[in-house]
Amino acid sequence: MSILPPSLQMVIDGFSRFPGIGPKTAQRLAFHVLKTNDGSVQNLANALLMAKENIKNCLVCHNITEESPCGICRDERRDKQTVCVVENPADIILLEKTQYRGQYHVLGGVLSPLDGIGPGDLNIDSLLERCSGVTEIIVATNTSIEGDTTALYLSEILQDKGIKVSRLARGLPVGGHLEYVDEATLLRSINERVEIR
Amino acid sequence: MSILPPSLQMVIDGFSRFPGIGPKTAQRLAFHVLKTNDGSVQNLANALLMAKENIKNCLVCHNITEESPCGICRDERRDKQTVCVVENPADIILLEKTQYRGQYHVLGGVLSPLDGIGPGDLNIDSLLERCSGVTEIIVATNTSIEGDTTALYLSEILQDKGIKVSRLARGLPVGGHLEYVDEATLLRSINERVEIR
Repeated sequence: MSILPPSLQMVIDGFSRFPGIGPKTAQRLAFHVLKTNDGSVQNLANALLMAKENIKNCLVCHNITEESPCGICRDERRDKQTVCVVENPADIILLEKTQYRGQYHVLGGVLSPLDGIGPGDLNIDSLLERCSGVTEIIVATNTSIEGDTTALYLSEILQDKGIKVSRLARGLPVGGHLEYVDEATLLRSINERVEIR
Repeated sequence: MSILPPSLQMVIDGFSRFPGIGPKTAQRLAFHVLKTNDGSVQNLANALLMAKENIKNCLVCHNITEESPCGICRDERRDKQTVCVVENPADIILLEKTQYRGQYHVLGGVLSPLDGIGPGDLNIDSLLERCSGVTEIIVATNTSIEGDTTALYLSEILQDKGIKVSRLARGLPVGGHLEYVDEATLLRSINERVEIR
């Protein structure tokens, strides 16, 4: 028997479907809603509906956007010859915090034969279609087995087209201490050491 | 410059106002919204608005409810002679998981002179008003200085009325190991030891 008001229980149920939100956290968030002023709650409810209604994928790069092509694809000041390939739209937010100012292409996942995800399930065809004029493709998949496999696969099909394919450097994180770095990363950082000039 | 669609940014802003939700988590939750089916998002948005609109405080015990008096106050099978005093409505959910089946009274906080919260800011007058017929009041405030002060204050004004005032036992948590218990709790558990019969 729930002693909670039904509408509050619905808010708790809704929140607990989010990743990383357990029943206790969902309850804490729901009680916070009751304490918040009406305007903020209304804004959040509207934003949820608007986001769901207005956001689609850019037809060029598959990034999320309210207008296709997206702002990055439309921006004439950005380098059109370099395309950075990422797994998810969220990765673009991180890369935009760097100095990178080229194009992006969202794969929508990585190759994972065990999960039944092959090249046909990813946005690879549309990547090949937009390759004319592109001189370099930077593969920025995660450093998982699947990410590395996907990078290798892309490099094979793209190098045939005469496009330079690179991927993100691996090595010590900035500010990292040697004693806390795992062996695989350390091995990489030795093998891919950079000459000091 | 935000490269995120405005409606998604609004969802992130909304989530990041919740307690314990930082900007990274808010972003993760917002991206989850995009992946969720339309129905679930609509349900959550509606529940937020409905909870905000329908939930009020019970005029008797100040618990949250859609209908005043609340279900607990209206339930004729519950013991009417015992009232358990809690800080917040969320505490009632926890106490309902025990065998306790008396009444409740939500103070809406605790006495805290440093924060300028005195007896007039809490639901104490309404507690005194409903005291006729009550034989015992169980003070279930937290074991903080403020919680203890509030318990002491309530016991003073209620015992004058001939009502028995008790508070929750302190001691070892069930399943707790002596070596992990703090000294203050251990001292309490010695002073308030219970004879084995």
